Amino acid sequence: MAEQFATGRNRKEDILRLIDRFARFGATLEGGIHRLAASEADKEARDYLCQWLEQNGFATLIDPVGNIFGILELKTAKSDRSFYCGSHLDSQPNGGRFDGTVGVVFACVAALAIKDLVQSGQIESTFERFVVACWTSEEGARFQPSLLGSSVFTGNLAVEDAWDCKDGDGVSLKDALVEIGYCGSDTPPKAHRYLEVHIEQGTRLDVSGYPIGLVQSSWGARKIEISITGKPDHTGPTPMDIRKDALLAASKLIVAVNDISTTSDLELHSSVGRIEVTPNSPNTVAGQTRLWIEFRSPNEEQMDTAEYRLNRAKTEISLATNCRIDRTRIEKRQVVSFNKDTLKVIADRFEQSGTSFLNMTTIAGHDALTMQSICPSSLLFVPSKDGISHAPEEYTSDEDLVAGFDASLSAITALISQPLAEVVHG
Amino acid sequence: MAEQFATGRNRKEDILRLIDRFARFGATLEGGIHRLAASEADKEARDYLCQWLEQNGFATLIDPVGNIFGILELKTAKSDRSFYCGSHLDSQPNGGRFDGTVGVVFACVAALAIKDLVQSGQIESTFERFVVACWTSEEGARFQPSLLGSSVFTGNLAVEDAWDCKDGDGVSLKDALVEIGYCGSDTPPKAHRYLEVHIEQGTRLDVSGYPIGLVQSSWGARKIEISITGKPDHTGPTPMDIRKDALLAASKLIVAVNDISTTSDLELHSSVGRIEVTPNSPNTVAGQTRLWIEFRSPNEEQMDTAEYRLNRAKTEISLATNCRIDRTRIEKRQVVSFNKDTLKVIADRFEQSGTSFLNMTTIAGHDALTMQSICPSSLLFVPSKDGISHAPEEYTSDEDLVAGFDASLSAITALISQPLAEVVHG
Repeated sequence: MAEQFATGRNRKEDILRLIDRFARFGATLEGGIHRLAASEADKEARDYLCQWLEQNGFATLIDPVGNIFGILELKTAKSDRSFYCGSHLDSQPNGGRFDGTVGVVFACVAALAIKDLVQSGQIESTFERFVVACWTSEEGARFQPSLLGSSVFTGNLAVEDAWDCKDGDGVSLKDALVEIGYCGSDTPPKAHRYLEVHIEQGTRLDVSGYPIGLVQSSWGARKIEISITGKPDHTGPTPMDIRKDALLAASKLIVAVNDISTTSDLELHSSVGRIEVTPNSPNTVAGQTRLWIEFRSPNEEQMDTAEYRLNRAKTEISLATNCRIDRTRIEKRQVVSFNKDTLKVIADRFEQSGTSFLNMTTIAGHDALTMQSICPSSLLFVPSKDGISHAPEEYTSDEDLVAGFDASLSAITALISQPLAEVVHG
Repeated sequence: MAEQFATGRNRKEDILRLIDRFARFGATLEGGIHRLAASEADKEARDYLCQWLEQNGFATLIDPVGNIFGILELKTAKSDRSFYCGSHLDSQPNGGRFDGTVGVVFACVAALAIKDLVQSGQIESTFERFVVACWTSEEGARFQPSLLGSSVFTGNLAVEDAWDCKDGDGVSLKDALVEIGYCGSDTPPKAHRYLEVHIEQGTRLDVSGYPIGLVQSSWGARKIEISITGKPDHTGPTPMDIRKDALLAASKLIVAVNDISTTSDLELHSSVGRIEVTPNSPNTVAGQTRLWIEFRSPNEEQMDTAEYRLNRAKTEISLATNCRIDRTRIEKRQVVSFNKDTLKVIADRFEQSGTSFLNMTTIAGHDALTMQSICPSSLLFVPSKDGISHAPEEYTSDEDLVAGFDASLSAITALISQPLAEVVHG
């Protein structure tokens, strides 16, 4: 960990080298990473980030939920305003090396580039400082809900509730953060602007050939946890008609959740990605199951319809299987539109500089959506090959990364030098 | 563990006290036991059994697969023949306290009772010794296949293959046995007769009011493992029609397996008790699943039909979900009929002594079925309340245990004193 990282003038090499470096923390044989929030691999990546920030002149702060902030004073003395930029370093189980990491690395290198531009007088900044943010547990893989660190930062989730989140082994987020040494006590500066760059996790940019996507709005999501109670019993002698098979009931519900989006004309994605089965033994009828269901749509009413159909399926399946089916948790993530003024500043800059870009919608959740609740925020996408994500095959080419960095630095330059009078929060 | 266990003359008290004692090893809050094969709790139960055997004059042997044998010489010098009696001490996850333990305890106490009867001249034994057998990993919960220890003893499974079995964490049975100190090197004596007492794990005895069941034959079983390969991807943006969701495919197959027995006139039980999902994260489409399927029937042809229908469902679901579905393992457990002469000896004794009994079939597998492949074997059932098994609520009353012990001791007495000339293996 004592590696000396001398950031050279060539920002493009820095980008590629840093992304490659982070890919080593939690590296898997398949070429991806397995870096669950607050795990040992996450600690290694965090340690490396903090070391890099300190070596490059940033002050580092850690807040109580483990968010890392790298503060670079621009010494413009124009205001006390902070320009935030970042993403996350945690990954899905056996996930990819670009998801989240690209945004953190871009923020780190962009900060240095902006400081150079300000100090050399090439641009004026209306922001006093540039803050690199690395949000805790964006993925929602080990701990639910997702977007956890940014939700605490923006006041959408109480830190105590975040600390109480438990992983599949019953370990609380707080204990996990203490274990890796990232349960801090610092208070970061207020955020006045946020920009995040992320891989698309879809095929549109890859197919279109555009180097960058400018996200206008997001789909909403309903994340629903279901608990099914049957009765454990011997899979052999127990007569079929008296069984209360919680895995059979769960299976019928998983099929029903799929049908809700695929056999209707709703603009809706649905999935069940996680199941827990007790006792999960080959010769015992399952007594208990838990399911993690997601509905996503650009339309709140269609998600209401999906919920209604889920409730109807729950009742039917409960009657058919003699199992009790309870909804134990629901998280509603609203459809979000990004700040229109900010979108216009970026679009104008892209047009002036001849950067071709695609106006897009995001279906996946990102920390920028949470940040939009407290300050004008922006989300830019770079292409991901074949749209593959949350998998070791996730891939963005060096060329696309460099083009994406150029475009996002251009967008940041426009936003950071925007006259104060023109800035409205909407 | 230094508890002194003085076996008194009152065998009935011994039975109840020993069952109660074994229920402490791996005890759960719900009142059952969690004592997976070759676990720490299994080690404690094994240690206690060995201590008890040695304190009561048995010689103990441990074979390479961890089977425990308690040898009590009857000193009849009539032959070199061994009368085996036993069951198992491993349990299902969060299982019950009677499954297996009843048979081991009955064997222990019956051995002492038989020795008394022989030494006091009340019966003559045509067997030189009584062997209490405690078979390793009967349940097939932590390690598959089930009936593992008795299968090695009878030559139906090579010890190397048994050692290679891995649990869900990739730990081999051999390593687990070495860890708990039960990978022995002793060679037990040849078995010439085997008798096992077990709780019914069904409702027939409990409903009928009979104290004991005399099992005539077993259902067969097909135990099939399935591997499903999809593609991990983001549950949000990935278009529904290009997903390869291995959990959706698994769910459709679980529903199909249930339909095979419940929507046909086959005399068949079917189940899926265990599923493994990778990566099993709320926001990643499952890339891989494994299923443990069981079909059970008294009729081999009907199991062939079930297998055929499963294959058809596999093909249909594979096409519908774009997932690859492979059968990775099949274990066929044949329909077994117990030795007819032995059944007659026991039935005659029950009739002479006025013991009312029920002729039965077993659907669950038991070590006695394996032992029947090498020597005349018998299986007796005691009632289990409401037929509940593999669950903490599993229950057999003290009264039923005592009546069951009386009846089985009477059966053992008849078998052990049967003139050699009358004994035929068939």
